[in-house]
Amino acid sequence: MPVDTPLLDKVTLPQDLRALERSQLTQFADELRAEVIDAVSVTGGHLGAGLGVVELTTALHYVFDTPTDKIIWDVGHQCYPHKILTGRRDRIRTLRQKDGLSGFTKRTESEYDPFGAAHAATSISAALGMAVARDLRGDVNRVVAVIGDGSMSAGMAYEAMNNAGDRGKQLTVILNDNDMSIAPPVGAMSAYLARVASSDKYHAFRNLAKQLAKRLPKGLYTSAEKFEEYGRAFVTGGTMFEELGFYYVGPIDGHNLDHLVPVLENVRELTDAPVMVHVVTQKGKGYAPAESAADKYHGVAKFDVVSGKQHKPKPAAPSYTSVFAGQLIKEAERDERVVGITAAMPSGTGIDKFMERFPDRTFDVGIAEQHAVTFAAGLAAEGMVPFAAIYSTFLQRAYDSVVHDVALQNLPVRFALDRAGLVGADGATHAGAFDIAYLGCLPNMVLMAAGDEAELVHMTHTAAAFDEHPIAFRFPRGEGQGLELPLTPQLLEIGRGRILREGAKVALIAYGGRLAECLKAADLLGMRGLSTTVVDARFAKPLDEDLIARVAADHEVVLTVEEGSMGGFGAAVLHFLARIGQLDKGLKIRTLTLPDTYQDQAKPADMYAEAKLQAENIADAAIVFFQGVALATADGGV
Amino acid sequence: MPVDTPLLDKVTLPQDLRALERSQLTQFADELRAEVIDAVSVTGGHLGAGLGVVELTTALHYVFDTPTDKIIWDVGHQCYPHKILTGRRDRIRTLRQKDGLSGFTKRTESEYDPFGAAHAATSISAALGMAVARDLRGDVNRVVAVIGDGSMSAGMAYEAMNNAGDRGKQLTVILNDNDMSIAPPVGAMSAYLARVASSDKYHAFRNLAKQLAKRLPKGLYTSAEKFEEYGRAFVTGGTMFEELGFYYVGPIDGHNLDHLVPVLENVRELTDAPVMVHVVTQKGKGYAPAESAADKYHGVAKFDVVSGKQHKPKPAAPSYTSVFAGQLIKEAERDERVVGITAAMPSGTGIDKFMERFPDRTFDVGIAEQHAVTFAAGLAAEGMVPFAAIYSTFLQRAYDSVVHDVALQNLPVRFALDRAGLVGADGATHAGAFDIAYLGCLPNMVLMAAGDEAELVHMTHTAAAFDEHPIAFRFPRGEGQGLELPLTPQLLEIGRGRILREGAKVALIAYGGRLAECLKAADLLGMRGLSTTVVDARFAKPLDEDLIARVAADHEVVLTVEEGSMGGFGAAVLHFLARIGQLDKGLKIRTLTLPDTYQDQAKPADMYAEAKLQAENIADAAIVFFQGVALATADGGV
Repeated sequence: MPVDTPLLDKVTLPQDLRALERSQLTQFADELRAEVIDAVSVTGGHLGAGLGVVELTTALHYVFDTPTDKIIWDVGHQCYPHKILTGRRDRIRTLRQKDGLSGFTKRTESEYDPFGAAHAATSISAALGMAVARDLRGDVNRVVAVIGDGSMSAGMAYEAMNNAGDRGKQLTVILNDNDMSIAPPVGAMSAYLARVASSDKYHAFRNLAKQLAKRLPKGLYTSAEKFEEYGRAFVTGGTMFEELGFYYVGPIDGHNLDHLVPVLENVRELTDAPVMVHVVTQKGKGYAPAESAADKYHGVAKFDVVSGKQHKPKPAAPSYTSVFAGQLIKEAERDERVVGITAAMPSGTGIDKFMERFPDRTFDVGIAEQHAVTFAAGLAAEGMVPFAAIYSTFLQRAYDSVVHDVALQNLPVRFALDRAGLVGADGATHAGAFDIAYLGCLPNMVLMAAGDEAELVHMTHTAAAFDEHPIAFRFPRGEGQGLELPLTPQLLEIGRGRILREGAKVALIAYGGRLAECLKAADLLGMRGLSTTVVDARFAKPLDEDLIARVAADHEVVLTVEEGSMGGFGAAVLHFLARIGQLDKGLKIRTLTLPDTYQDQAKPADMYAEAKLQAENIADAAIVFFQGVALATADGGV
Repeated sequence: MPVDTPLLDKVTLPQDLRALERSQLTQFADELRAEVIDAVSVTGGHLGAGLGVVELTTALHYVFDTPTDKIIWDVGHQCYPHKILTGRRDRIRTLRQKDGLSGFTKRTESEYDPFGAAHAATSISAALGMAVARDLRGDVNRVVAVIGDGSMSAGMAYEAMNNAGDRGKQLTVILNDNDMSIAPPVGAMSAYLARVASSDKYHAFRNLAKQLAKRLPKGLYTSAEKFEEYGRAFVTGGTMFEELGFYYVGPIDGHNLDHLVPVLENVRELTDAPVMVHVVTQKGKGYAPAESAADKYHGVAKFDVVSGKQHKPKPAAPSYTSVFAGQLIKEAERDERVVGITAAMPSGTGIDKFMERFPDRTFDVGIAEQHAVTFAAGLAAEGMVPFAAIYSTFLQRAYDSVVHDVALQNLPVRFALDRAGLVGADGATHAGAFDIAYLGCLPNMVLMAAGDEAELVHMTHTAAAFDEHPIAFRFPRGEGQGLELPLTPQLLEIGRGRILREGAKVALIAYGGRLAECLKAADLLGMRGLSTTVVDARFAKPLDEDLIARVAADHEVVLTVEEGSMGGFGAAVLHFLARIGQLDKGLKIRTLTLPDTYQDQAKPADMYAEAKLQAENIADAAIVFFQGVALATADGGV
């Protein structure tokens, strides 16, 4: 549904916005909001967060001299309005699609994106680096970080504030407090912010102006005094931020441009201290279906603008996430020591379902992966059976906790690594590419990958029962293969793979989610007379050494196939085959991994084709070894 | 110098301590301190931190029912007094030596060490996990974390407090505030604690007792009221911790057992909220040479107890650390964009020297590796030349920052990875084992390793000049080879190795600090008629593919040699040789890496012998391929 946007149509870049009268900003923001809603109705994507910052985005670009002044959006999923008014409106309906705009801020996309993001709580650190660079250069541009209250549960935000608070130089942190990240926020900081935002809201609302007036350089006193007349912002708290060395301003109504603009104009002039501006916003603001939804339309499919109804394609099979959650609940019914841990991703990880069933045995620790893992280690040390359900990409945040607290102490923490491999529309920042490498190098770790959803049932069950070592099992984003789930889960033998198809010439050793493609590839190879064995390795660590040695000895060509980077499963197989001397004799072996590049967003199948990990690619990689066999595709081969 | 310790001699375990009269505790603590000093004078190790907590250790074990009650020492380098009074006095003079006691807490060593440590700021997370396990089990034991003020700059501590503050259950956090970690602490939290500890110190010192009395269960009122009479503790602040949901008590004189014991006795009974007890101590307390030293004898060599003079062996060559620091200063003299970043390790990383020369271009961000790296990314985004000097083992704490903020955005942050490989007395927790694997899997990264200190000069210079990608260079702990340092640093060609010795039969491809051992191994092999090529790969990423392909084609046996785990350099070489078909033809190749175990502390050479990475081991690994050549050692071979 096209919307009438006369003011927005005049604005290609922020300089055009700054040419508007201040009195026009409210209408401009309304148009911007309508454009965001319309665009996301076509593309799907993150909606609620963007709607919550329409006025803030408008005010920031109106007040600050972007791109000379830098605005760093934390996470970046709230940046659609920012993209629209920074020269990308013409492409806004390509969001999150192949060759389209990223769903996050991205340096290569625009000079108005000075720092890319997608994981939480990086903005203050990056902004401080940019502010320090400015000061060393003797420049005077402003640096502004915009961070949500959810991100404030992350240790990184605290580390950055602790460092920034020590420096008496310009740095503005906008705390965008919508009392909501993806899930309702947790933790003491969140409770603190709620107290600040609610208490004494209607007292002393002139104090902000007075306080600001005191801090401002002499020449600006007049405007500051004027500001006192219309600045309806409040000073009600913020002690904690003041103790951390920030000058605290707020809370301010983040949807009222008559508040935002003058406050930001004054804050802009505070160049001798870091400032924290506490802005209260509403996620999903201005779009009734979003406002009334529990998740505030955090992430949506394409939808009908009038009704708000989302066009969610009917799933062909249950998601891996739900299969994991279902089995974890069964394990917890059997064993009261089983507990579930999530780092602010209850719905994404399926822990929300576990929480419904076992609220007292579920722990959402906030966006705090490091703490989540060491907390799990503490539980494991006391004999509990903790499942830390963390996406592959987010476990990167907790790597030292895995090494130092879990693996080194050999504590049986269970890691459920969702979103292993390529993830589609979220792009490179969310790819679960590295966990096989970064976990596989650690002594004591046991690593499994689910080849299909039935395997995920077995692996969840096996992980619950296994307590000799820490164990991680990875599984892909999205739907399973549509297999019937096993009624009785199996206890898998640790370090044993399985042969799914027996052949003679080619062996495909799959680790994880490419198993189905390997089976298809075996069909393709069979049609060319290349009898193919398909192995589901199940374990990257410990390797099934007997099986791999046998397969390597009995086949002309061996391919390892994994949804992960170099240094992972294929590397472990090569290390092993080198060690036993199998390579001495000559072995036609190739390790098919994700490419050594960051892949931009696209449909998963397209991304895997680009990675040359689809069935045809796998078949091609084998076929090139055999003389006289035609290639399956024109661009095949390795 | 043996000391007279009549009370300590009666105490093997905490239960013996608890049999003493309270009036004997001061003498006991004095004896314990003398024993710590005497033991460390023999072994060397961490002294200042342990001396600072002699009274606190005594009070904790006197008041709490260890090991049923759990005490988690953060970092764990202050645990020597704890080890002495928990059954390990008979082995205390084996600290940090092969087959001796670990210099940190360690689960496998004692039931009184419920959670091991060595990296900072893990204790509250682990303690919370243990407290939750207790509550789920319905037990009533206490859990106590003891954390230094330095660790409070780490985001993990904040994440854990944020989570714990939300829970109304027993958890005691002792904030051991000595205004000093390894270096003077930095950041706003440190300044806050200093304000709290100094302000109003002599006001209202009865408030603590009153407040505690209010919180205590009814039946305990009497003792709490009595306590008021002698409890000379003070309540002066702690708002920040209260905002985070903790009940704050303090600051308390941490060397006065008449304060500590009653406060802890009362805190022990607070079972309905997390409590933060702020204890002020003095690092190095009670030993004059330590008290007067700038570093408070944080880590010492063996020393003379009377004079405090340390027996530091005269170094045969400058350390890698100092070579790096010296060259970085030269780079900064040439290029004003060069800045140095450390995460609370200025002296360990050599950044202290850089700081002396360029105070305005040096940033000690606190124990905050995540922030350090993303802060560096912000600097790089603005055209600065940031060197993040972080030990290999501590960069694990910043892994997602490296992936998400640096590598994915291809920002030219320079990582100086000190302590690569095995580190000796600090043991497994500090080994720099995994960085080649965890960085090598990341697209965009460039990885170098210095084969000697002259190479480190070139690599520091090369990293300063190279801005196309992020780049990391690793180098070992300790002294260099004693080479003359080059007057003119070379710009190394990215992705090019070098041949140090030309041979015909065996090729040793060294990556990093084992280069000298490879040269020695080549000598050993030469003596057996096995003409040996030695390659210094210099780069693990990008590989010198031409060189490696040529060497693989021209030699009968190829060994890769690295001071790192599986999945690193050797894996990259195997991936590459598989890809180009070199393995198809048969190649006697072995990848010599660190073993897939955590190695306990010993002398580095002993540890490398255990890892089979000394010259003789390397030679043996080659010799086994050749018929009729006798093995170099009895237990040689792979």
